[in-house]
Amino acid sequence: MALTLYNYFRSSASYRVRIALALKGLSYEYVPVHLLKNEQLKPPFSEMTPAKLVPLLQDGDHVLSQSLAIIEYLEETHPQPPLLPAAPAERARVRALALDIACEIHPIDNLRVLRYLVHEMKVSEDDKNRWYRHWVETGLDTLEQQLAKSPQTGRFCHGDTPTLADTVLVPQIFNAQRMDCRLDHVPTVMRIHQECMALDAFKSTQPSACPDAS
Amino acid sequence: MALTLYNYFRSSASYRVRIALALKGLSYEYVPVHLLKNEQLKPPFSEMTPAKLVPLLQDGDHVLSQSLAIIEYLEETHPQPPLLPAAPAERARVRALALDIACEIHPIDNLRVLRYLVHEMKVSEDDKNRWYRHWVETGLDTLEQQLAKSPQTGRFCHGDTPTLADTVLVPQIFNAQRMDCRLDHVPTVMRIHQECMALDAFKSTQPSACPDAS
Repeated sequence: MALTLYNYFRSSASYRVRIALALKGLSYEYVPVHLLKNEQLKPPFSEMTPAKLVPLLQDGDHVLSQSLAIIEYLEETHPQPPLLPAAPAERARVRALALDIACEIHPIDNLRVLRYLVHEMKVSEDDKNRWYRHWVETGLDTLEQQLAKSPQTGRFCHGDTPTLADTVLVPQIFNAQRMDCRLDHVPTVMRIHQECMALDAFKSTQPSACPDAS
Repeated sequence: MALTLYNYFRSSASYRVRIALALKGLSYEYVPVHLLKNEQLKPPFSEMTPAKLVPLLQDGDHVLSQSLAIIEYLEETHPQPPLLPAAPAERARVRALALDIACEIHPIDNLRVLRYLVHEMKVSEDDKNRWYRHWVETGLDTLEQQLAKSPQTGRFCHGDTPTLADTVLVPQIFNAQRMDCRLDHVPTVMRIHQECMALDAFKSTQPSACPDAS
């Protein structure tokens, strides 16, 4: 079945799904939705989804939203190679690491939240940047502690093959670097980031390699 | 195996897990962690988890964090009654509805985020409340549109039995009511909330029914 990904090169939630598709070896049509031009708020995209958020994955008649739900769907429909381990407690660890980023860091620094902070709360540009860095730096510090203290951490977040957690970690590091966040306090996170970026699935789908990159 | 839940009566992420445990008919030891007294930052709790967030579920040797990862774990270890449908695209819909709340509404209005807004960004109490209501009201509006337009919505968010999505929806409505958010624009959401609250699993685990409720 033909897959179509509606996404934006710089959206880290989009990048998560691009990595998962690449790790699974799935080809897809790439449809860019330019967030800074507010294309997500206009037809045809806005009519596909009330949430008006990228990414969306279309698989035949199914239109799927929310990056983590999309990746779980890919895992269920294309199990090889697996992005989750087999044992329930290990699956829970991988999902929790992914959610430590997807729930505790990313939403607070989302573009629409930053816009609201500046336009409605009248926070200065400097304070907005401080806000951004605070949540990234403290959130990654928590992740570092989870990863550094666990014997289950391997070459990647969990063991020696990439999982759902790595598909979420790498895009967050791209954002952190673009916003000049401190990263010297998270050596395990950065080591794993490097391991990932040595793989084609992470490298070939990075923001600068996307058709809509500018 | 004995289950222990570390949680706080008013934490909506905790309430999600309490509902899931009740729907699955699982008994557990209830250990309160008082967030307003910062008990999550002190031993013994702080030594169990670098993230210092509730809820945590202990199952024998396993200490599990992140409410959605915990519920997926319960689903895998205690499949009956199921909290996710069988078909991948339906599972994806339920997970996406859960993430529409867990990623797009809840994290932005988390206690630590509100504290940072007031103490570091110097936002007034009034503006903090406006911030809170903005993300709840617009986020629930998106959810309403997802639910109202889909033939897959039934008595509950997906079909006629409660799923993961309902375990996330109900706690968010409790928060919304406590903060006097507008709810007259989300009739489908509120109808489902009522359907849920007629069930003992949702009612018996609500914040006011918890041992640590004050």
